[in-house]
Amino acid sequence: MNNSKIEIARKWFEELRDKLILNIEKIDSTNFIITEWDHKHQGGGKMSKIKGQVIEKGGVNISTVEGKFEENMIGKVPGTENDSSYQATGISVVLHPHSPFIPSMHFNTRFLKTEQEWFGGGIDVTPCLPFKDEEQYHSSLESLCDKFDKNYYKKFKSWCDEYFYLTYRKEPRGIGGIFFDYLKTDDWGRDFEFVQNVGNFFNDFSSKTILKYKDLNWSDEEKNIQLLKRSKYVEFNLLHDRGTKFGLETGGNIDAILMSMPPLAKWD
Amino acid sequence: MNNSKIEIARKWFEELRDKLILNIEKIDSTNFIITEWDHKHQGGGKMSKIKGQVIEKGGVNISTVEGKFEENMIGKVPGTENDSSYQATGISVVLHPHSPFIPSMHFNTRFLKTEQEWFGGGIDVTPCLPFKDEEQYHSSLESLCDKFDKNYYKKFKSWCDEYFYLTYRKEPRGIGGIFFDYLKTDDWGRDFEFVQNVGNFFNDFSSKTILKYKDLNWSDEEKNIQLLKRSKYVEFNLLHDRGTKFGLETGGNIDAILMSMPPLAKWD
Repeated sequence: MNNSKIEIARKWFEELRDKLILNIEKIDSTNFIITEWDHKHQGGGKMSKIKGQVIEKGGVNISTVEGKFEENMIGKVPGTENDSSYQATGISVVLHPHSPFIPSMHFNTRFLKTEQEWFGGGIDVTPCLPFKDEEQYHSSLESLCDKFDKNYYKKFKSWCDEYFYLTYRKEPRGIGGIFFDYLKTDDWGRDFEFVQNVGNFFNDFSSKTILKYKDLNWSDEEKNIQLLKRSKYVEFNLLHDRGTKFGLETGGNIDAILMSMPPLAKWD
Repeated sequence: MNNSKIEIARKWFEELRDKLILNIEKIDSTNFIITEWDHKHQGGGKMSKIKGQVIEKGGVNISTVEGKFEENMIGKVPGTENDSSYQATGISVVLHPHSPFIPSMHFNTRFLKTEQEWFGGGIDVTPCLPFKDEEQYHSSLESLCDKFDKNYYKKFKSWCDEYFYLTYRKEPRGIGGIFFDYLKTDDWGRDFEFVQNVGNFFNDFSSKTILKYKDLNWSDEEKNIQLLKRSKYVEFNLLHDRGTKFGLETGGNIDAILMSMPPLAKWD
Protein backbone atom coordinates (compact mmCIF):
# COMPACT_ATOMS: atom_id res chain seq x y z
CA MET A 1 0.00 0.00 0.00
CA ASN A 2 1.51 3.30 -0.89
CA ASN A 3 -1.22 5.72 0.00
CA SER A 4 0.70 8.19 2.08
CA LYS A 5 -2.05 9.10 4.56
CA ILE A 6 -2.74 5.42 5.24
CA GLU A 7 1.02 4.96 5.72
CA ILE A 8 1.34 7.99 8.02
CA ALA A 9 -1.59 6.82 10.16
CA ARG A 10 -0.36 3.22 10.30
CA LYS A 11 3.11 4.30 11.37
CA TRP A 12 1.75 6.41 14.16
CA PHE A 13 -0.56 3.60 15.30
CA GLU A 14 2.51 1.39 15.52
CA GLU A 15 4.36 3.98 17.57
CA LEU A 16 1.38 4.23 19.93
CA ARG A 17 1.24 0.44 20.22
CA ASP A 18 4.93 0.28 21.05
CA LYS A 19 4.53 2.92 23.78
CA LEU A 20 1.46 1.21 25.21
CA ILE A 21 3.11 -2.19 25.23
CA LEU A 22 6.25 -0.81 26.85
CA ASN A 23 4.18 0.79 29.63
CA ILE A 24 2.05 -2.26 30.30
CA GLU A 25 4.98 -4.67 30.17
CA LYS A 26 6.84 -2.54 32.73
CA ILE A 27 3.87 -2.52 35.12
CA ASP A 28 2.96 -6.16 34.59
CA SER A 29 6.40 -7.77 34.31
CA THR A 30 4.94 -9.86 31.48
CA ASN A 31 5.67 -9.69 27.79
CA PHE A 32 3.12 -9.39 25.04
CA ILE A 33 3.11 -12.18 22.49
CA ILE A 34 2.94 -10.99 18.90
CA THR A 35 1.20 -12.79 16.05
CA GLU A 36 0.87 -11.66 12.46
CA TRP A 37 -2.12 -12.58 10.35
CA ASP A 38 -3.33 -12.06 6.79
CA HIS A 39 -6.67 -10.67 5.71
CA LYS A 40 -8.57 -12.64 3.10
CA HIS A 41 -8.26 -9.63 0.81
CA GLN A 42 -5.01 -7.72 0.69
CA GLY A 43 -3.23 -6.75 3.85
CA GLY A 44 -3.18 -8.10 7.34
CA GLY A 45 -2.40 -7.26 10.88
CA LYS A 46 -0.31 -7.71 13.93
CA MET A 47 -1.85 -8.74 17.20
CA SER A 48 -0.06 -8.28 20.51
CA LYS A 49 -1.59 -10.23 23.37
CA ILE A 50 -0.86 -10.38 27.09
CA LYS A 51 -1.89 -12.77 29.87
CA GLY A 52 -0.22 -11.11 32.77
CA GLN A 53 0.01 -10.59 36.52
CA VAL A 54 -2.08 -7.43 36.46
CA ILE A 55 -3.76 -7.63 33.07
CA GLU A 56 -5.71 -10.89 33.05
CA LYS A 57 -6.20 -10.59 29.30
CA GLY A 58 -5.31 -7.75 27.01
CA GLY A 59 -4.47 -7.06 23.44
CA VAL A 60 -3.46 -4.49 20.91
CA ASN A 61 -4.32 -5.15 17.31
CA ILE A 62 -3.20 -3.16 14.30
CA SER A 63 -4.63 -4.02 10.94
CA THR A 64 -4.08 -2.47 7.55
CA VAL A 65 -6.23 -3.86 4.79
CA GLU A 66 -7.61 -3.01 1.40
CA GLY A 67 -10.29 -4.58 -0.73
CA LYS A 68 -13.72 -4.02 -2.14
CA PHE A 69 -16.90 -3.78 -0.10
CA GLU A 70 -19.51 -6.48 -0.70
CA GLU A 71 -22.57 -5.51 -2.72
CA ASN A 72 -24.77 -4.93 0.36
CA MET A 73 -22.39 -2.30 1.81
CA ILE A 74 -22.21 -0.13 -1.31
CA GLY A 75 -23.89 3.20 -0.72
CA LYS A 76 -24.05 2.58 3.04
CA VAL A 77 -20.38 3.44 3.42
CA PRO A 78 -19.57 7.03 2.32
CA GLY A 79 -17.68 7.31 -0.95
CA THR A 80 -18.58 3.84 -2.26
CA GLU A 81 -21.30 4.92 -4.70
CA ASN A 82 -19.02 4.74 -7.78
CA ASP A 83 -16.21 2.55 -6.55
CA SER A 84 -16.45 -0.06 -3.82
CA SER A 85 -12.70 -0.07 -3.08
CA TYR A 86 -11.47 0.76 0.39
CA GLN A 87 -8.24 1.05 2.29
CA ALA A 88 -8.18 1.09 6.04
CA THR A 89 -5.75 1.08 8.89
CA GLY A 90 -6.68 0.89 12.53
CA ILE A 91 -5.57 0.14 16.04
CA SER A 92 -7.66 -1.35 18.80
CA VAL A 93 -6.76 -1.98 22.41
CA VAL A 94 -8.62 -3.82 25.15
CA LEU A 95 -7.37 -4.38 28.68
CA HIS A 96 -9.19 -6.69 31.10
CA PRO A 97 -7.38 -6.50 34.46
CA HIS A 98 -7.47 -9.16 37.19
CA SER A 99 -8.45 -6.56 39.78
CA PRO A 100 -12.12 -5.61 39.99
CA PHE A 101 -10.93 -2.17 41.11
CA ILE A 102 -9.42 -1.48 37.70
CA PRO A 103 -12.01 -1.01 34.94
CA SER A 104 -11.82 -2.79 31.62
CA MET A 105 -10.48 -0.16 29.21
CA HIS A 106 -10.96 0.06 25.49
CA PHE A 107 -9.64 2.32 22.77
CA ASN A 108 -9.69 2.10 19.03
CA THR A 109 -9.20 4.35 16.09
CA ARG A 110 -9.05 3.87 12.36
CA PHE A 111 -8.50 5.80 9.17
CA LEU A 112 -10.66 4.78 6.22
CA LYS A 113 -10.27 5.71 2.61
CA THR A 114 -12.85 5.16 -0.13
CA GLU A 115 -13.55 7.95 -2.61
CA GLN A 116 -13.87 9.83 0.67
CA GLU A 117 -11.66 9.54 3.75
CA TRP A 118 -12.21 9.91 7.47
CA PHE A 119 -11.21 8.93 10.99
CA GLY A 120 -13.33 7.05 13.47
CA GLY A 121 -12.69 5.76 16.93
CA GLY A 122 -13.24 6.21 20.60
CA ILE A 123 -12.38 5.35 24.14
CA ASP A 124 -14.61 3.82 26.76
CA VAL A 125 -14.26 2.41 30.21
CA THR A 126 -16.18 -0.34 32.02
CA PRO A 127 -15.78 -0.46 35.78
CA CYS A 128 -17.58 -3.17 37.75
CA LEU A 129 -17.30 -1.39 41.11
CA PRO A 130 -17.76 2.35 41.70
CA PHE A 131 -14.86 4.09 39.96
CA LYS A 132 -13.57 7.08 41.92
CA ASP A 133 -11.83 8.67 38.95
CA GLU A 134 -14.94 8.77 36.80
CA GLU A 135 -15.48 12.53 37.03
CA GLN A 136 -11.82 13.27 36.36
CA TYR A 137 -11.86 10.88 33.41
CA HIS A 138 -14.80 12.59 31.75
CA SER A 139 -13.52 16.10 32.39
CA SER A 140 -10.10 15.26 30.94
CA LEU A 141 -11.78 14.02 27.78
CA GLU A 142 -13.83 17.22 27.68
CA SER A 143 -10.70 19.39 27.89
CA LEU A 144 -9.04 17.30 25.21
CA CYS A 145 -12.00 17.70 22.85
CA ASP A 146 -12.38 21.42 23.60
CA LYS A 147 -8.86 22.07 22.29
CA PHE A 148 -10.13 21.01 18.86
CA ASP A 149 -13.77 21.96 18.66
CA LYS A 150 -16.16 23.19 21.34
CA ASN A 151 -18.88 20.96 19.88
CA TYR A 152 -16.87 17.73 19.90
CA TYR A 153 -17.27 16.65 23.52
CA LYS A 154 -21.03 16.91 23.77
CA LYS A 155 -21.47 15.18 20.44
CA PHE A 156 -18.89 12.44 20.93
CA LYS A 157 -19.93 11.72 24.52
CA SER A 158 -23.59 11.21 23.55
CA TRP A 159 -22.51 9.09 20.60
CA CYS A 160 -20.52 6.89 23.00
CA ASP A 161 -23.42 6.62 25.45
CA GLU A 162 -25.74 5.63 22.63
CA TYR A 163 -23.35 3.15 21.09
CA PHE A 164 -22.25 1.30 24.23
CA TYR A 165 -25.78 0.60 25.38
CA LEU A 166 -27.42 -2.79 25.88
CA THR A 167 -30.86 -2.02 24.50
CA TYR A 168 -32.57 -5.22 25.72
CA ARG A 169 -31.20 -4.72 29.26
CA LYS A 170 -31.81 -0.97 29.09
CA GLU A 171 -28.42 -0.31 30.65
CA PRO A 172 -25.08 1.12 29.50
CA ARG A 173 -22.08 -1.21 29.12
CA GLY A 174 -19.90 1.01 31.26
CA ILE A 175 -19.38 4.71 31.99
CA GLY A 176 -18.73 5.64 28.36
CA GLY A 177 -16.19 8.14 27.14
CA ILE A 178 -16.14 9.45 23.58
CA PHE A 179 -16.99 7.85 20.26
CA PHE A 180 -16.72 9.44 16.83
CA ASP A 181 -16.99 8.43 13.19
CA TYR A 182 -16.81 10.06 9.75
CA LEU A 183 -14.49 12.69 11.25
CA LYS A 184 -13.35 14.86 8.39
CA THR A 185 -12.81 18.60 8.61
CA ASP A 186 -10.95 20.51 5.90
CA ASP A 187 -7.73 20.03 7.85
CA TRP A 188 -6.58 16.38 7.73
CA GLY A 189 -3.52 17.10 9.85
CA ARG A 190 -5.69 18.58 12.57
CA ASP A 191 -8.09 15.59 12.51
CA PHE A 192 -5.12 13.28 12.81
CA GLU A 193 -3.79 15.35 15.70
CA PHE A 194 -7.13 14.88 17.48
CA VAL A 195 -6.92 11.11 17.00
CA GLN A 196 -3.34 11.17 18.28
CA ASN A 197 -4.45 13.13 21.35
CA VAL A 198 -7.12 10.51 22.12
CA GLY A 199 -4.58 7.71 21.71
CA ASN A 200 -2.04 9.41 23.94
CA PHE A 201 -4.74 10.11 26.51
CA PHE A 202 -5.61 6.39 26.58
CA ASN A 203 -1.95 5.51 27.02
CA ASP A 204 -1.55 7.84 30.03
CA PHE A 205 -4.94 7.11 31.54
CA SER A 206 -4.63 3.33 31.37
CA SER A 207 -1.16 3.23 32.92
CA LYS A 208 -2.07 5.65 35.70
CA THR A 209 -5.29 3.81 36.53
CA ILE A 210 -3.60 0.43 36.62
CA LEU A 211 -0.76 1.71 38.81
CA LYS A 212 -3.17 3.42 41.20
CA TYR A 213 -5.34 0.37 41.92
CA LYS A 214 -3.26 -2.68 41.12
CA ASP A 215 -2.05 -3.37 44.66
CA LEU A 216 -5.44 -3.18 46.38
CA ASN A 217 -6.69 -6.54 47.62
CA TRP A 218 -10.11 -7.65 46.53
CA SER A 219 -12.61 -10.06 48.02
CA ASP A 220 -14.25 -13.07 46.36
CA GLU A 221 -17.47 -11.08 46.36
CA GLU A 222 -15.81 -8.22 44.45
CA LYS A 223 -14.29 -10.66 41.94
CA ASN A 224 -17.71 -12.24 41.50
CA ILE A 225 -19.24 -8.84 40.69
CA GLN A 226 -16.55 -8.41 38.05
CA LEU A 227 -17.25 -11.81 36.44
CA LEU A 228 -20.96 -11.03 36.26
CA LYS A 229 -20.32 -7.58 34.79
CA ARG A 230 -18.08 -9.14 32.17
CA SER A 231 -20.95 -11.28 30.87
CA LYS A 232 -22.60 -8.06 29.75
CA TYR A 233 -19.39 -7.08 28.01
CA VAL A 234 -19.61 -10.37 26.11
CA GLU A 235 -23.26 -9.78 25.29
CA PHE A 236 -22.50 -6.31 23.99
CA ASN A 237 -19.65 -7.48 21.79
CA LEU A 238 -21.61 -10.32 20.22
CA LEU A 239 -25.08 -8.79 20.02
CA HIS A 240 -24.38 -5.13 19.34
CA ASP A 241 -20.83 -4.33 18.31
CA ARG A 242 -20.74 -3.42 14.64
CA GLY A 243 -17.03 -4.10 14.28
CA THR A 244 -17.36 -7.63 15.65
CA LYS A 245 -20.31 -8.47 13.41
CA PHE A 246 -18.68 -6.92 10.37
CA GLY A 247 -15.43 -8.73 11.04
CA LEU A 248 -16.98 -12.16 11.54
CA GLU A 249 -19.27 -11.80 8.53
CA THR A 250 -16.50 -10.66 6.19
CA GLY A 251 -14.06 -13.42 7.07
CA GLY A 252 -11.73 -11.40 9.26
CA ASN A 253 -9.26 -13.00 11.65
CA ILE A 254 -11.34 -14.56 14.46
CA ASP A 255 -8.65 -14.21 17.11
CA ALA A 256 -8.14 -10.55 16.29
CA ILE A 257 -11.89 -9.84 16.26
CA LEU A 258 -12.55 -11.68 19.51
CA MET A 259 -9.44 -10.26 21.18
CA SER A 260 -11.78 -7.91 23.03
CA MET A 261 -13.60 -10.73 24.83
CA PRO A 262 -13.00 -10.92 28.58
CA PRO A 263 -10.91 -13.83 29.89
CA LEU A 264 -13.66 -15.27 32.07
CA ALA A 265 -17.32 -14.30 32.35
CA LYS A 266 -20.15 -15.54 34.49
CA TRP A 267 -23.89 -15.82 33.92
CA ASP A 268 -25.95 -16.30 37.03
CA MET B 1 -56.20 -18.90 26.48
CA ASN B 2 -58.76 -21.50 25.64
CA ASN B 3 -57.41 -22.99 22.49
CA SER B 4 -57.55 -26.64 23.31
CA LYS B 5 -54.45 -27.79 21.41
CA ILE B 6 -52.36 -25.05 23.02
CA GLU B 7 -53.76 -26.14 26.39
CA ILE B 8 -53.10 -29.84 25.74
CA ALA B 9 -49.52 -29.13 24.68
CA ARG B 10 -48.89 -26.78 27.61
CA LYS B 11 -50.16 -29.30 30.11
CA TRP B 12 -47.95 -32.01 28.75
CA PHE B 13 -44.93 -29.67 28.75
CA GLU B 14 -45.63 -29.05 32.42
CA GLU B 15 -45.80 -32.75 33.14
CA LEU B 16 -42.48 -33.25 31.36
CA ARG B 17 -40.94 -30.39 33.33
CA ASP B 18 -42.14 -31.90 36.60
CA LYS B 19 -40.64 -35.28 35.71
CA LEU B 20 -37.36 -33.69 34.62
CA ILE B 21 -37.10 -31.59 37.75
CA LEU B 22 -37.89 -34.53 39.98
CA ASN B 23 -35.14 -36.60 38.33
CA ILE B 24 -32.51 -33.88 38.46
CA GLU B 25 -33.35 -32.88 42.02
CA LYS B 26 -32.97 -36.49 43.13
CA ILE B 27 -29.55 -36.82 41.49
CA ASP B 28 -28.33 -33.39 42.55
CA SER B 29 -29.80 -33.09 46.07
CA THR B 30 -30.60 -29.48 45.14
CA ASN B 31 -33.96 -27.89 44.51
CA PHE B 32 -34.92 -25.84 41.49
CA ILE B 33 -36.04 -22.29 42.19
CA ILE B 34 -39.16 -21.27 40.34
CA THR B 35 -39.96 -17.79 39.06
CA GLU B 36 -42.99 -16.65 37.13
CA TRP B 37 -42.81 -13.85 34.59
CA ASP B 38 -45.18 -11.98 32.31
CA HIS B 39 -44.74 -11.43 28.60
CA LYS B 40 -45.17 -7.88 27.33
CA HIS B 41 -48.12 -9.12 25.30
CA GLN B 42 -50.52 -11.60 26.83
CA GLY B 43 -49.24 -14.60 28.66
CA GLY B 44 -46.06 -15.42 30.48
CA GLY B 45 -43.95 -18.20 31.72
CA LYS B 46 -42.49 -20.15 34.53
CA MET B 47 -38.77 -20.59 34.86
CA SER B 48 -37.21 -23.29 37.02
CA LYS B 49 -33.52 -22.79 37.71
CA ILE B 50 -30.92 -24.88 39.48
CA LYS B 51 -27.41 -24.15 40.75
CA GLY B 52 -26.52 -27.52 42.10
CA GLN B 53 -23.82 -29.98 43.14
CA VAL B 54 -23.81 -31.76 39.80
CA ILE B 55 -25.57 -29.26 37.54
CA GLU B 56 -23.51 -26.08 37.72
CA LYS B 57 -26.33 -24.16 36.03
CA GLY B 58 -29.52 -25.46 34.55
CA GLY B 59 -33.01 -24.36 33.77
CA VAL B 60 -36.36 -25.38 32.45
CA ASN B 61 -38.56 -22.68 31.02
CA ILE B 62 -42.16 -23.00 29.94
CA SER B 63 -43.79 -20.07 28.25
CA THR B 64 -47.27 -19.68 26.83
CA VAL B 65 -47.89 -16.42 25.04
CA GLU B 66 -50.13 -14.84 22.48
CA GLY B 67 -49.93 -11.61 20.54
CA LYS B 68 -49.45 -10.19 17.10
CA PHE B 69 -46.25 -10.45 15.06
CA GLU B 70 -44.50 -7.19 14.24
CA GLU B 71 -44.84 -5.88 10.69
CA ASN B 72 -41.46 -7.26 9.58
CA MET B 73 -42.38 -10.85 10.51
CA ILE B 74 -45.64 -10.96 8.56
CA GLY B 75 -45.39 -13.34 5.63
CA LYS B 76 -42.14 -14.80 6.96
CA VAL B 77 -44.00 -16.87 9.55
CA PRO B 78 -46.44 -19.35 7.94
CA GLY B 79 -50.10 -18.43 8.31
CA THR B 80 -49.58 -14.75 9.04
CA GLU B 81 -50.43 -13.40 5.58
CA ASN B 82 -53.99 -12.35 6.54
CA ASP B 83 -53.77 -12.19 10.31
CA SER B 84 -50.63 -11.52 12.33
CA SER B 85 -51.99 -13.12 15.54
CA TYR B 86 -50.16 -16.01 17.11
CA GLN B 87 -50.41 -18.30 20.09
CA ALA B 88 -47.48 -20.33 21.25
CA THR B 89 -46.50 -22.62 24.05
CA GLY B 90 -43.06 -24.11 24.51
CA ILE B 91 -40.62 -25.74 26.84
CA SER B 92 -36.86 -25.36 26.80
CA VAL B 93 -34.28 -27.08 28.94
CA VAL B 94 -30.55 -26.50 29.28
CA LEU B 95 -28.22 -28.33 31.62
CA HIS B 96 -24.60 -27.23 32.14
CA PRO B 97 -22.95 -29.74 34.49
CA HIS B 98 -19.88 -29.05 36.65
CA SER B 99 -18.17 -32.15 35.29
CA PRO B 100 -16.40 -31.84 31.94
CA PHE B 101 -17.25 -35.51 31.40
CA ILE B 102 -20.97 -34.73 31.21
CA PRO B 103 -21.94 -32.80 28.07
CA SER B 104 -24.11 -29.70 28.15
CA MET B 105 -27.55 -30.92 27.10
CA HIS B 106 -30.32 -28.96 25.47
CA PHE B 107 -33.89 -29.72 24.50
CA ASN B 108 -36.75 -27.53 23.44
CA THR B 109 -40.06 -27.89 21.75
CA ARG B 110 -42.94 -25.60 20.98
CA PHE B 111 -46.38 -25.58 19.44
CA LEU B 112 -47.25 -22.51 17.39
CA LYS B 113 -50.60 -21.45 16.10
CA THR B 114 -51.26 -18.75 13.52
CA GLU B 115 -53.77 -19.39 10.74
CA GLN B 116 -51.62 -22.51 10.48
CA GLU B 117 -50.23 -24.62 13.31
CA TRP B 118 -47.11 -26.73 13.79
CA PHE B 119 -44.55 -28.15 16.18
CA GLY B 120 -40.88 -27.29 16.27
CA GLY B 121 -38.04 -28.32 18.49
CA GLY B 122 -35.00 -30.45 18.95
CA ILE B 123 -32.37 -31.94 21.14
CA ASP B 124 -28.64 -31.41 20.96
CA VAL B 125 -25.63 -32.25 23.04
CA THR B 126 -22.32 -30.44 23.52
CA PRO B 127 -19.50 -32.47 25.04
CA CYS B 128 -16.14 -30.82 25.65
CA LEU B 129 -14.20 -34.08 25.94
CA PRO B 130 -14.71 -37.20 23.78
CA PHE B 131 -18.16 -38.54 24.63
CA LYS B 132 -18.24 -42.35 24.67
CA ASP B 133 -22.01 -42.58 24.29
CA GLU B 134 -22.12 -40.51 21.12
CA GLU B 135 -22.89 -43.40 18.78
CA GLN B 136 -25.54 -44.84 21.09
CA TYR B 137 -27.10 -41.36 21.44
CA HIS B 138 -27.43 -40.86 17.69
CA SER B 139 -28.73 -44.37 17.04
CA SER B 140 -31.37 -44.04 19.76
CA LEU B 141 -32.60 -40.86 18.12
CA GLU B 142 -32.66 -42.66 14.78
CA SER B 143 -34.83 -45.48 16.19
CA LEU B 144 -37.12 -42.94 17.79
CA CYS B 145 -37.58 -41.06 14.51
CA ASP B 146 -38.01 -44.25 12.47
CA LYS B 147 -41.08 -45.18 14.52
CA PHE B 148 -42.80 -42.12 13.04
CA ASP B 149 -41.39 -41.61 9.57
CA LYS B 150 -38.42 -43.21 7.85
CA ASN B 151 -37.43 -39.82 6.43
CA TYR B 152 -37.40 -37.95 9.73
CA TYR B 153 -34.01 -38.90 11.09
CA LYS B 154 -31.92 -38.02 8.04
CA LYS B 155 -33.77 -34.74 7.60
CA PHE B 156 -33.82 -33.69 11.26
CA LYS B 157 -30.23 -34.71 11.91
CA SER B 158 -28.93 -32.61 8.97
CA TRP B 159 -31.14 -29.73 10.05
CA CYS B 160 -29.55 -29.93 13.51
CA ASP B 161 -26.01 -30.09 12.12
CA GLU B 162 -26.72 -27.09 9.92
CA TYR B 163 -28.38 -25.08 12.69
CA PHE B 164 -25.86 -25.65 15.49
CA TYR B 165 -22.90 -24.57 13.41
CA LEU B 166 -20.55 -21.65 14.05
CA THR B 167 -20.12 -20.41 10.49
CA TYR B 168 -17.24 -18.00 11.20
CA ARG B 169 -15.28 -20.71 13.09
CA LYS B 170 -16.32 -23.38 10.57
CA GLU B 171 -17.06 -25.80 13.38
CA PRO B 172 -20.17 -27.39 14.94
CA ARG B 173 -21.26 -26.32 18.43
CA GLY B 174 -21.42 -29.91 19.62
CA ILE B 175 -22.32 -33.34 18.29
CA GLY B 176 -25.83 -32.36 17.23
CA GLY B 177 -28.92 -34.50 17.55
CA ILE B 178 -32.17 -33.65 15.82
CA PHE B 179 -33.85 -30.36 14.98
CA PHE B 180 -37.23 -29.87 13.32
CA ASP B 181 -39.64 -27.05 12.53
CA TYR B 182 -42.98 -26.58 10.76
CA LEU B 183 -43.84 -30.18 11.67
CA LYS B 184 -47.41 -30.73 10.56
CA THR B 185 -48.74 -33.95 9.08
CA ASP B 186 -52.45 -34.59 8.72
CA ASP B 187 -52.43 -36.27 12.14
CA TRP B 188 -51.93 -33.73 14.93
CA GLY B 189 -52.10 -36.40 17.62
CA ARG B 190 -49.28 -38.31 15.95
CA ASP B 191 -47.11 -35.17 15.60
CA PHE B 192 -47.68 -34.46 19.27
CA GLU B 193 -46.74 -38.04 20.10
CA PHE B 194 -43.45 -37.57 18.24
CA VAL B 195 -42.73 -34.43 20.25
CA GLN B 196 -43.57 -36.29 23.45
CA ASN B 197 -41.21 -39.10 22.47
CA VAL B 198 -38.38 -36.61 21.96
CA GLY B 199 -39.13 -35.00 25.35
CA ASN B 200 -39.20 -38.35 27.13
CA PHE B 201 -36.00 -39.38 25.39
CA PHE B 202 -34.29 -36.23 26.69
CA ASN B 203 -35.56 -36.94 30.18
CA ASP B 204 -34.13 -40.47 30.18
CA PHE B 205 -30.94 -39.63 28.34
CA SER B 206 -30.02 -36.67 30.54
CA SER B 207 -30.56 -38.55 33.81
CA LYS B 208 -28.67 -41.62 32.64
CA THR B 209 -25.74 -39.58 31.31
CA ILE B 210 -25.46 -37.53 34.48
CA LEU B 211 -25.60 -40.61 36.71
CA LYS B 212 -23.03 -42.44 34.63
CA TYR B 213 -20.34 -39.74 34.74
CA LYS B 214 -21.05 -37.58 37.76
CA ASP B 215 -18.65 -39.32 40.15
CA LEU B 216 -15.59 -39.29 37.88
CA ASN B 217 -12.88 -36.91 39.04
CA TRP B 218 -11.60 -34.36 36.59
CA SER B 219 -8.34 -32.44 36.34
CA ASP B 220 -7.85 -28.67 36.13
CA GLU B 221 -6.82 -29.21 32.53
CA GLU B 222 -10.11 -30.96 31.74
CA LYS B 223 -12.11 -28.21 33.49
CA ASN B 224 -10.17 -25.65 31.47
CA ILE B 225 -11.11 -27.39 28.22
CA GLN B 226 -14.73 -27.19 29.33
CA LEU B 227 -14.54 -23.45 30.08
CA LEU B 228 -13.00 -22.77 26.67
CA LYS B 229 -15.62 -24.91 24.91
CA ARG B 230 -18.36 -23.00 26.72
CA SER B 231 -17.21 -19.70 25.19
CA LYS B 232 -18.29 -21.11 21.83
CA TYR B 233 -21.65 -22.00 23.33
CA VAL B 234 -21.98 -18.33 24.31
CA GLU B 235 -20.91 -17.19 20.87
CA PHE B 236 -23.45 -19.48 19.23
CA ASN B 237 -26.30 -18.30 21.44
CA LEU B 238 -25.60 -14.60 20.92
CA LEU B 239 -24.45 -14.59 17.30
CA HIS B 240 -26.54 -17.33 15.71
CA ASP B 241 -29.46 -18.55 17.79
CA ARG B 242 -32.71 -17.35 16.26
CA GLY B 243 -34.70 -17.81 19.47
CA THR B 244 -32.30 -15.66 21.48
CA LYS B 245 -32.27 -12.88 18.90
CA PHE B 246 -36.03 -12.99 18.46
CA GLY B 247 -36.61 -12.98 22.20
CA LEU B 248 -34.30 -10.06 22.93
CA GLU B 249 -35.60 -8.01 20.01
CA THR B 250 -39.26 -8.55 20.90
CA GLY B 251 -38.95 -7.64 24.56
CA GLY B 252 -39.08 -11.13 26.01
CA ASN B 253 -37.94 -11.93 29.53
CA ILE B 254 -34.14 -11.52 29.55
CA ASP B 255 -33.55 -14.07 32.31
CA ALA B 256 -35.63 -16.66 30.52
CA ILE B 257 -33.94 -16.00 27.16
CA LEU B 258 -30.44 -16.07 28.60
CA MET B 259 -31.19 -19.08 30.83
CA SER B 260 -29.26 -21.14 28.28
CA MET B 261 -25.98 -19.31 28.88
CA PRO B 262 -23.27 -21.34 30.60
CA PRO B 263 -22.37 -20.43 34.19
CA LEU B 264 -18.76 -19.57 33.42
CA ALA B 265 -16.96 -19.28 30.11
CA LYS B 266 -13.41 -18.54 29.14
CA TRP B 267 -11.83 -16.82 26.16
CA ASP B 268 -8.13 -17.43 25.71
